Amino acid sequence: MRESAVKTNPGRFFEDYRLGEVISHAVPRTVSGGERALYHALYPARHAIYSSDTFAQSCGLPASPLDDLVAFHTVFGKTVPDISLNAIANLGYAEGRWLQPVYPGDTLRASSTVIGLKENSNGTSGVVYVRTRGINQHDVPVLDYVRWVMVRKGRPDAPAPAPVVPKLAPVVAPQDLVLPKGLDFTRYDFAQAGERHRWGDYAVGEQIDHVDGVTVEEAEHMLATRLWQNTAKVHFDATVREDGRRLIYGGHVISLARALSFNGLANAQMIVALNGGAHANPCFAGDTVRAWSEVLDRVETSAPGVGALRLRLVATRGAAFEMRGADGRYLPEVLLDLDYWVLMPV
Amino acid sequence: MRESAVKTNPGRFFEDYRLGEVISHAVPRTVSGGERALYHALYPARHAIYSSDTFAQSCGLPASPLDDLVAFHTVFGKTVPDISLNAIANLGYAEGRWLQPVYPGDTLRASSTVIGLKENSNGTSGVVYVRTRGINQHDVPVLDYVRWVMVRKGRPDAPAPAPVVPKLAPVVAPQDLVLPKGLDFTRYDFAQAGERHRWGDYAVGEQIDHVDGVTVEEAEHMLATRLWQNTAKVHFDATVREDGRRLIYGGHVISLARALSFNGLANAQMIVALNGGAHANPCFAGDTVRAWSEVLDRVETSAPGVGALRLRLVATRGAAFEMRGADGRYLPEVLLDLDYWVLMPV
Amino acid sequence: MRESAVKTNPGRFFEDYRLGEVISHAVPRTVSGGERALYHALYPARHAIYSSDTFAQSCGLPASPLDDLVAFHTVFGKTVPDISLNAIANLGYAEGRWLQPVYPGDTLRASSTVIGLKENSNGTSGVVYVRTRGINQHDVPVLDYVRWVMVRKGRPDAPAPAPVVPKLAPVVAPQDLVLPKGLDFTRYDFAQAGERHRWGDYAVGEQIDHVDGVTVEEAEHMLATRLWQNTAKVHFDATVREDGRRLIYGGHVISLARALSFNGLANAQMIVALNGGAHANPCFAGDTVRAWSEVLDRVETSAPGVGALRLRLVATRGAAFEMRGADGRYLPEVLLDLDYWVLMPV
Repeated sequence: MRESAVKTNPGRFFEDYRLGEVISHAVPRTVSGGERALYHALYPARHAIYSSDTFAQSCGLPASPLDDLVAFHTVFGKTVPDISLNAIANLGYAEGRWLQPVYPGDTLRASSTVIGLKENSNGTSGVVYVRTRGINQHDVPVLDYVRWVMVRKGRPDAPAPAPVVPKLAPVVAPQDLVLPKGLDFTRYDFAQAGERHRWGDYAVGEQIDHVDGVTVEEAEHMLATRLWQNTAKVHFDATVREDGRRLIYGGHVISLARALSFNGLANAQMIVALNGGAHANPCFAGDTVRAWSEVLDRVETSAPGVGALRLRLVATRGAAFEMRGADGRYLPEVLLDLDYWVLMPV
Repeated sequence: MRESAVKTNPGRFFEDYRLGEVISHAVPRTVSGGERALYHALYPARHAIYSSDTFAQSCGLPASPLDDLVAFHTVFGKTVPDISLNAIANLGYAEGRWLQPVYPGDTLRASSTVIGLKENSNGTSGVVYVRTRGINQHDVPVLDYVRWVMVRKGRPDAPAPAPVVPKLAPVVAPQDLVLPKGLDFTRYDFAQAGERHRWGDYAVGEQIDHVDGVTVEEAEHMLATRLWQNTAKVHFDATVREDGRRLIYGGHVISLARALSFNGLANAQMIVALNGGAHANPCFAGDTVRAWSEVLDRVETSAPGVGALRLRLVATRGAAFEMRGADGRYLPEVLLDLDYWVLMPV
Repeated sequence: MRESAVKTNPGRFFEDYRLGEVISHAVPRTVSGGERALYHALYPARHAIYSSDTFAQSCGLPASPLDDLVAFHTVFGKTVPDISLNAIANLGYAEGRWLQPVYPGDTLRASSTVIGLKENSNGTSGVVYVRTRGINQHDVPVLDYVRWVMVRKGRPDAPAPAPVVPKLAPVVAPQDLVLPKGLDFTRYDFAQAGERHRWGDYAVGEQIDHVDGVTVEEAEHMLATRLWQNTAKVHFDATVREDGRRLIYGGHVISLARALSFNGLANAQMIVALNGGAHANPCFAGDTVRAWSEVLDRVETSAPGVGALRLRLVATRGAAFEMRGADGRYLPEVLLDLDYWVLMPV
């Protein structure tokens, strides 16, 4: 009386998604100072609001929140068993907004709504669009973003759904940015933050090479990815890929690049929106990851002393500032191309 | 005026144990959210009671406890300097019971009573049986188990003690299982737990392939083993074995297998008893560990909505369901064969 | 409109330091049970005061503090961007004192005063002496030490400053040791601490081989070094050195050696002073680190039941007790030679 896949989660296939369906993701997660310490051990993170209670309090927050990307990874990790277990590719992000900081003691859960479905012309796969929301123990949303993935079909003869491609904003509009309650940068301590450059010192079009590099080890990316309860096989099991390599979770590269960007953007304190992003090429252990940024836009906000900067953050295992080849495609050295809004002292 | 071993702990040899002796193990340990976060970084652990305060509270507990295996490893680690520093082999476990959940802020200490001694016929080693108890800061026992190890003699001429082999139960009787106070699964949220199968859906004899695999790195098993303050040289010092390999702590394999069993046994929430276990073969970095389970028994309990399942959990670096060769011995791919009771919603 | 180093921190060069200047280091850091758990995962640390709230309370402290070296590494890490980014060598430590234990929830910041400057005769570099102070959220100093480093000049033609070499004590005088408020070893539990030898059992000149060894992995030293927000490139970026090796942070070796010294010095509970120290040779992943100690001095203290021991702690990747070659220089196997005071039960 043997069985092998009846009680285990086979993941969803393209034909298993219905437009408008709400998927409640499993395994809520309480975070603590432990997740925070691990984040600092895993990434060269130094932004002062996420490092110090006293600094955060001087900015009007009750205490130092967990890094915005801890919230992102935790919510993202919950979606993996329902959204990307049979995914062929993670295609994009849009309309991401951080709605409330996450503090030690908070419990996060997540749900996703299917907002688009489009079968590919080859009939063997399709694109699924979901809007994912992270919610805390008070039922307050902390994060909201759209992601679309290419998912394998389970049965080739499953009929194609009516194609629906959601209309997504190319960038989160400045008036839609949600500022943490109480945030006030009028008494911001630039010396303690580690850099003198303020919002007004960054010009649209300016590029910053973040200089430092980190050579990635297998143990590190696995510790990180497991910490977010992301269970995708390719990150952990060296026997999955024919080349015996473990693919590094794209979010690990996001966090590495964001942490490296401290050197040149130490005052780009809080991430408030994710406009878009592409994991341009896979990253593997042994790669030395570097990062550079480009200033895309600058807007004022209603919070005292707080400006918003729209940044492109590029992670690479090569030289800074190179991005696309003559054919218009990402160079093989480019790992990540991320477009986001941050809050900065004016 | 040099010395090299006078002040350091040489460990006990077989002739150093006395029947009935109580050994109070050193270095009590306070655990926090830090140990919990690390457990999630080290193992693909997703059982909801240990991940979320809100989920644990909906099951009648005051908060999310630390994983039952954190309690086990912490207590086990304390015994190493007194019990297994000169051990040749860890032979077995029996009569293990978890008596009370461990929460962040608790301080654990451990003591062991020698309950059996039997010199081997070769006269160079013997088997020591101990009953080990973990106790919290309120002097309340949290864990109790019997372990027996083969220990080297220090002096070949030391006289053999009168052989005493304790009579051990092959399985913890259902009426002896201790249920956490207040535990109530009547409002259990199967969607948030991550699986729809309940106690009644598992049949005795049923086998479950947990599908996923984890390729183990040196840094990971050393971080884990140190976290439990387990100081056995073979896990850390590559010069100890002739082949230059570091032996992975057997408990690391237990935690890996238990965490992997989420996929198929997500509702097997709390471990309440350890009936027996064998570390069938050594595990080394580079191994890809997989797991499968077999349902051995099912009983009802007195707690509302709570059933108990007796499970065999097998860790392997090969295929599922294979276990013994034609000679009746464990196949070389089998790493662990564990027999335990868990609590599950009915 | 490209730029590459305008907004990033190029570090200070020798000519950028002024005698008497006070440098306020960036990025305050709040520590929690997370840092404590990670310390136990990264090092084989077992000293009972830092492991258990109940043990610490039985010694008159309010709770278990973070390891003294967590305080040291955190403060040291803050100084790196201002002091050692362009350093050629870390030359020495002196007059280090721990002034108050650090507890979970504390926020540490650091500042350094330039107390000496001396250009080297080659005119391309110079020695900078700083007195660094770590301060908690109540503006109370927790740690104070002198460090001197050899720093590259940025402009070869920058004029040499008037040479000032501070007069530093070869050892912190016993009367200058600061004992933690309330510390009382009169009810010290030797069994729970893990060793029976007390202060009176150690003789000046006695040497102790700590026996155990740890083979170091890249992931481990990078996790540790990042945890202290130490950003020196050589520890993380395998492309910096011509040999492709990542240099292990000297403080990682200090913590490894101190933790290994538990076996023979389990009662050497609290570090109160750093008299001096040399990172004799670089350490790399793959090295198996061992440690030995020598008792240099013994003094009584005013705290009940508390004695102080002055110890030399030597880390090596070779045999114990060997230290210098015929030429008087450290043997290539010697990694660390540290001179410190600890508190011990009399």
